[in-house]
Amino acid sequence: MLKNYLIGINSLTTINFKTPVQQYLPQVEERMRDQSVGHHPDLKSAVEHLLASGGKRVRPILCLLAGEMLGSDLQRTITLAAAVEMLHTATLVHDDMIDGALLRRGNPTLNSKWSPAATILTGDFIFARAAKLAAETDSIEVMNLFAQTLSDIVNGEITQMFKSRGLVSRDDYFERIYAKTASMFELATVAPIYLSEGKDELSSIMKTFGYEIGMAFQIVDDILDFTGAQANVGKPVASDLRQGLVTLPALIYIEENPNDEDFMRALNGGNGDDALMTRLVSSIRESGAVEKSLSQAKKYVSRGLASLNELPMSEERKALEDLARYIVDRDF
Amino acid sequence: MLKNYLIGINSLTTINFKTPVQQYLPQVEERMRDQSVGHHPDLKSAVEHLLASGGKRVRPILCLLAGEMLGSDLQRTITLAAAVEMLHTATLVHDDMIDGALLRRGNPTLNSKWSPAATILTGDFIFARAAKLAAETDSIEVMNLFAQTLSDIVNGEITQMFKSRGLVSRDDYFERIYAKTASMFELATVAPIYLSEGKDELSSIMKTFGYEIGMAFQIVDDILDFTGAQANVGKPVASDLRQGLVTLPALIYIEENPNDEDFMRALNGGNGDDALMTRLVSSIRESGAVEKSLSQAKKYVSRGLASLNELPMSEERKALEDLARYIVDRDF
Repeated sequence: MLKNYLIGINSLTTINFKTPVQQYLPQVEERMRDQSVGHHPDLKSAVEHLLASGGKRVRPILCLLAGEMLGSDLQRTITLAAAVEMLHTATLVHDDMIDGALLRRGNPTLNSKWSPAATILTGDFIFARAAKLAAETDSIEVMNLFAQTLSDIVNGEITQMFKSRGLVSRDDYFERIYAKTASMFELATVAPIYLSEGKDELSSIMKTFGYEIGMAFQIVDDILDFTGAQANVGKPVASDLRQGLVTLPALIYIEENPNDEDFMRALNGGNGDDALMTRLVSSIRESGAVEKSLSQAKKYVSRGLASLNELPMSEERKALEDLARYIVDRDF
Repeated sequence: MLKNYLIGINSLTTINFKTPVQQYLPQVEERMRDQSVGHHPDLKSAVEHLLASGGKRVRPILCLLAGEMLGSDLQRTITLAAAVEMLHTATLVHDDMIDGALLRRGNPTLNSKWSPAATILTGDFIFARAAKLAAETDSIEVMNLFAQTLSDIVNGEITQMFKSRGLVSRDDYFERIYAKTASMFELATVAPIYLSEGKDELSSIMKTFGYEIGMAFQIVDDILDFTGAQANVGKPVASDLRQGLVTLPALIYIEENPNDEDFMRALNGGNGDDALMTRLVSSIRESGAVEKSLSQAKKYVSRGLASLNELPMSEERKALEDLARYIVDRDF
């Protein structure tokens, strides 16, 4: 039901928010593809494969919209948008390898086709080229933000690996999704400030906006893992929980049903038991936890929208608002 | 014989070249250790372990000497030296994992103690912190050089993985050791220029110096793999050749003995045959290929020394010369 609602609204909203920057997206793609030029041909084909199976380019779009709204230097903002998406791509390469994921967005992952060594090094190469692109924005502030974001993301992954399997607190969950997703959204919305003139005082507005919609984005991603909207791309429903990772819908469910035996068994090694998992996922879906999670995501989006109120209305601000709303209405 | 010669001269030379910058090395160590502050405790212990088992800090010393010679800003040069050594450390973490190495400098590698996932992420974290340190030099030129060097290193590793196993040309070999080692020596000698005033015209001298001694450094490393000087740190003699990697001594040997059957068998899957490998390593050592390789390394060092002739004599220039000579006399 929720899934159908999400699908229904999707086609309507994806079109609008891109409009003001649509014309620059091919240049972002080109900047990314150029990164493998002059390097080993197998690297080139890996980068092509990763970029071709890339998602909706939400991060570069966000970056370009913020840049256009702030009057940032266009060419350097295009470079920044490419840097952000390359950084995102690099983290996915190592993540998929660590998780042993075979598909992403319906396409085979690099680790499903290449050796561990080739996969690790390709991830490293994409990190390197993301850093090179960030340096080419010619802003030391951008470079600092970029490197800090990369640290935060990796530290978050390590924390998740060592600590966050099993039952976590809401604080742990929010800390994890900040590191995983919202930190990069912040980078995309804040960094364009340093490519414009005299917009430094907008830094906290742009940071709040990026943070809030980034948190919402990851919560919705975690919801979609439960609603099954990702089943068509080859992931099993509740793939996170099957790997022992507790996300918001599961967290809300266990808060409300602290003695649920299926849940405890799933966390204590029972996550390979298909019958148990199917029953548990049904219980979670029917419990209202998904709707409550979406309501939480909508709160984040509302705060993000509110932060933009201090800015003058413009085509780009309108598009950023559309993008924010799209996050809680999307289906991907 | 060569080995004894190398050991004999070692204690004499290690002391001198450090002297002008010895007092700053503790600050470099501190900058590196600080990178794990505020992050996950297991990360902190991994970083401590890696730094404690670190080598002779040749790259930071090179960087500090170059900086002092060029009149670079001291604090930023210390930060740069830490960035360069962190970058070096990060590449070792992923390299050891890919090679399945259990020991480095006599200490257990991270991958021998941790899961692949934890090892990959720790390497990523150290890359991230190296990039953060590079950004903290507050020089976009340094950042650009840093990111380009990282790309070159990783591209070199990928090329080696896909192409350079088995028989290679001298050009392939030199290209590989440039990417693996000389590129980072160049970074260490060139980047301090951007932390000084009005020294831009020295860029090509500093680049030549870093390049030449970096090439020599890797050739000597490859020689030491054959002379057995590394046996006491747990590596078997000729560990590269055992992994199918042909370095200069082996390359010179096969150039002079193109029909050597042991060699061809070793490259065609016979590298696990201990008797064959022992015989082959003896043949290479007795062939004069090791001495010819050292002579090649000394040519690089001579060119490096010659490049410094255009600079006024100073305590730091003298130390850089000592460091260059030490490379072809060292035992590590």
